[in-house]
Amino acid sequence: MYRIGIDLGGTNIAIGIVTDEGKLVKKKSVPTLAKERTGEEIVEVMVKESLSLIKEEGLKENDIRSIGIGSPGVTDPANGVLVHTVNLPFLHTPFRKIFEKYTKIPMYLNNDANCAALGEIVSGGAAGYKNCVMITLGTGVGGGIIVDGKIVTGFNGAAGEVGHMVIHAGGELCNCGRRGCYERYASATALIQFTRAAAEKHPESIINKLCEGDLNKISAKTPFEAKRAGDLVAAEIIENYIHDLGDGILNFMSIFQPEVILVGGGVSYEGDYLFNPLREYVIKNAFATEYIPQAKILPATLGNDAGIIGAAMLDE
Amino acid sequence: MYRIGIDLGGTNIAIGIVTDEGKLVKKKSVPTLAKERTGEEIVEVMVKESLSLIKEEGLKENDIRSIGIGSPGVTDPANGVLVHTVNLPFLHTPFRKIFEKYTKIPMYLNNDANCAALGEIVSGGAAGYKNCVMITLGTGVGGGIIVDGKIVTGFNGAAGEVGHMVIHAGGELCNCGRRGCYERYASATALIQFTRAAAEKHPESIINKLCEGDLNKISAKTPFEAKRAGDLVAAEIIENYIHDLGDGILNFMSIFQPEVILVGGGVSYEGDYLFNPLREYVIKNAFATEYIPQAKILPATLGNDAGIIGAAMLDE
Repeated sequence: MYRIGIDLGGTNIAIGIVTDEGKLVKKKSVPTLAKERTGEEIVEVMVKESLSLIKEEGLKENDIRSIGIGSPGVTDPANGVLVHTVNLPFLHTPFRKIFEKYTKIPMYLNNDANCAALGEIVSGGAAGYKNCVMITLGTGVGGGIIVDGKIVTGFNGAAGEVGHMVIHAGGELCNCGRRGCYERYASATALIQFTRAAAEKHPESIINKLCEGDLNKISAKTPFEAKRAGDLVAAEIIENYIHDLGDGILNFMSIFQPEVILVGGGVSYEGDYLFNPLREYVIKNAFATEYIPQAKILPATLGNDAGIIGAAMLDE
Repeated sequence: MYRIGIDLGGTNIAIGIVTDEGKLVKKKSVPTLAKERTGEEIVEVMVKESLSLIKEEGLKENDIRSIGIGSPGVTDPANGVLVHTVNLPFLHTPFRKIFEKYTKIPMYLNNDANCAALGEIVSGGAAGYKNCVMITLGTGVGGGIIVDGKIVTGFNGAAGEVGHMVIHAGGELCNCGRRGCYERYASATALIQFTRAAAEKHPESIINKLCEGDLNKISAKTPFEAKRAGDLVAAEIIENYIHDLGDGILNFMSIFQPEVILVGGGVSYEGDYLFNPLREYVIKNAFATEYIPQAKILPATLGNDAGIIGAAMLDE
């Protein structure tokens, strides 16, 4: 049997055919056109494109166990309703009801970051494990939590907002309205901001050479590159970044003690330059390391496919 | 059928007979004598006292579904082993193996704070709910996490250490070695420390009258009492305390979105004087309150019996 996984994004809808083992065998992408379409129309596009993909692959609806959707925002998985999104035209939109007009294949729905975590535990960086906290270092810090192989969705569908755990109470203002959220310190955006501020304060830093004096050219890669070139300012930026990133990870270990903490997103591509000092900081500060095993800190491996694969596995 | 629940403490071992509905019908307590006994001897006391309590009640071993134990420290529930404790003579102690020498009743083991959370969800302050984060405000901040009716134990048995979530990175030094842990701000101990410091700094405060000038007489009740008497210094202490306590609760909501956040321990006995401003702070800072329901913040109700009742329910 196969499943369909859909990663609903603000720009594109990515649809894939996935095996029961979590292998993506076929993928296509269509534009969301979120500004031109109503929410109901977008759902109709998803179901119709899914059915045509099944046909294109020479499969029948009977060959498909389920269609799963990962969406931004807050979902109501039990009822298949998309409760609320910020950038898409959905509010209490009954996805399942719309799907049922067109097909008998059961439809499942969950948050996209939760689906990515599920995908990684099925066939990605955390394959073979049952408990995992995934954090994705991008514009914000996204993530998902898997306990005993299941997504922690929360009673209202909004759980797993790992980026909005406050670690610096009273600190930097977050878009969510609180101060000191994890993502204000551990996201790629935060790392870029800290790097820009340091570059301004230290004109002699190699950072300014790398960005040719244009602070807008600084990316999350810049401080790592500058550090490798021997820049002490960059080394300090990264040390502070590792401490904040690590403090959040240590919090998730105290709370969940998962087998794996999975780190994804752009910053994770720094590989050993990120993971080595991060693991060192975490193990130095972890609880009872002489008596109990500790979580592994591993890179996510599925990239953008994680959401499709996880969505396809929502019926498990 | 009945079950036996045991709350293993540093001073006493409390043993109870509990119904399948989580009602405590009989309870007794014997001294632990942790300094005079080996770990194995303490386990033998637990099994023998359990069997004699069953007899005293006119029951047979066949009437007892299970014996559950809540212990301080890190447990290995799958193997029934107590891995590590700080103040008791256990290290990789095979509780289940020792029990099996004396009885065929199945034995279960978990951390005592986790058991208390389970007890509260079975027949206490969170009865009828499936998802709950419990925090106990005492010497530290203890707690337990229930997802879908099950304790979150973690792969190494050490999950649910809610008091060691860092909320003020780089802040007050904690016994665990990290800085800024939740319990350094939200425990009864922390509240007492903040109150003492404020009393020293503000000789005019009513706090100094209430403690008759002896800072050692300050308890967690003192600032609440002083605030009720109109003391502005105490009002500020409590406001700051509520913010820190609330920030941790908001973190647990972002992570878990449980139906209930249960607050227990000495400070919770302040009732509305604690819960009203706490709920106000949390709802003001919670995520998407206009679109999704939010966790209820409720008092724990079982007191010291929670651990016995939860331990008795470990076989569920």
